[in-house]
Amino acid sequence: MLKLYSYWRSSASYRVRIALNLKGLPYEIEPVHLVRDGGQQHSAAYRAINPQSRVPLLVDGPFRLNQSQAILEYLEARHPQPSLLPGDMRQQARIRAFCMTITADVQPLQNTSVLKYLEAPLGVAEAARTEWLRHWITRGLEALEQEYAATAAAFVFGDAPTMAECVLVPQLYAAARFDCDVARFRRLADIGERCAALPAFQRAHPDVQPDAGG
Amino acid sequence: MLKLYSYWRSSASYRVRIALNLKGLPYEIEPVHLVRDGGQQHSAAYRAINPQSRVPLLVDGPFRLNQSQAILEYLEARHPQPSLLPGDMRQQARIRAFCMTITADVQPLQNTSVLKYLEAPLGVAEAARTEWLRHWITRGLEALEQEYAATAAAFVFGDAPTMAECVLVPQLYAAARFDCDVARFRRLADIGERCAALPAFQRAHPDVQPDAGG
Repeated sequence: MLKLYSYWRSSASYRVRIALNLKGLPYEIEPVHLVRDGGQQHSAAYRAINPQSRVPLLVDGPFRLNQSQAILEYLEARHPQPSLLPGDMRQQARIRAFCMTITADVQPLQNTSVLKYLEAPLGVAEAARTEWLRHWITRGLEALEQEYAATAAAFVFGDAPTMAECVLVPQLYAAARFDCDVARFRRLADIGERCAALPAFQRAHPDVQPDAGG
Repeated sequence: MLKLYSYWRSSASYRVRIALNLKGLPYEIEPVHLVRDGGQQHSAAYRAINPQSRVPLLVDGPFRLNQSQAILEYLEARHPQPSLLPGDMRQQARIRAFCMTITADVQPLQNTSVLKYLEAPLGVAEAARTEWLRHWITRGLEALEQEYAATAAAFVFGDAPTMAECVLVPQLYAAARFDCDVARFRRLADIGERCAALPAFQRAHPDVQPDAGG
């Protein structure tokens, strides 16, 4: 069975949980708590499995893979149906660009390790850290909202969720967590609500993970 | 002909220039200077083409695509030979994970807009900003060095450059620019030197771009 090293609140882990659920793949969660014990990702045991000391990590038999975006692509190649990258090469390119706007431009700036570094050594106060979060999250979501506001399908790329929603929904969760006003991104928020009604997304939600809380 | 909106020093633009050259595709560079005129990416003219106000942007006939990683994948799908994602699905996954360690974990933290935000409003002094850069670049390159130190091929994934080198070489360039000690990442630095001997990489180098300098 597939095994996913995951942290309940990690956006990157959440992305992969959604993809696994959308594809109907059975998997086992191995929690790695990024806060407890000074960060379990730094433990010798976990570093032996993943020298990058990050989550998620997917284990598929003898094969280990880190980096959520690479994992999403791997799941798509290994289990093509239902597809999370539907359409022709241009549609696929648009889906990937949507994902990367979050994966490369937003999420890295809200990462736990980055927020910690801002606190110390940089000494950035909590209010300014919150402002930092809002700035980058708003900038990224605004760009996507502007790009897709005029589209009318149930989901970003048609009548079913794709890789785009695997990445969008955890970002909306993070935005709400950091007190960003998500409602102003009307189109994205609508899509998020539609996803929230689907079991694949419900079972991937941070609150129902075995390591939730703390 | 393909057109690439590019900034000479942007790592993300540099990645795409390398890929275009490795695939032997003719293209035209349209410079977008991220510093001059308060940042030409914010001009109304450029925003009309790319609301994200970022580079690179690839234009392929009527099709416009942003996000360097999505562009690399699109070029691979549209012009499969020579392949920048060779091998079976696991090898492809490893190549993508290598790329994402830089694209999602390192480069976003050295982005011009992030360095500017650290300066103001956060008021982080220059020495501390340099330390920030070194911290994230070192962390990312160290992880990759550790993962690939024991491999012996000429390039990261065999005897020819792949998507991995498209992303690695601009990161090594940025590391040197920000005074990181690249030599300690022996395996990565060796690969970087091997790439530097190839015309595809030489012609993609920031210093020979039409907008170089300033």
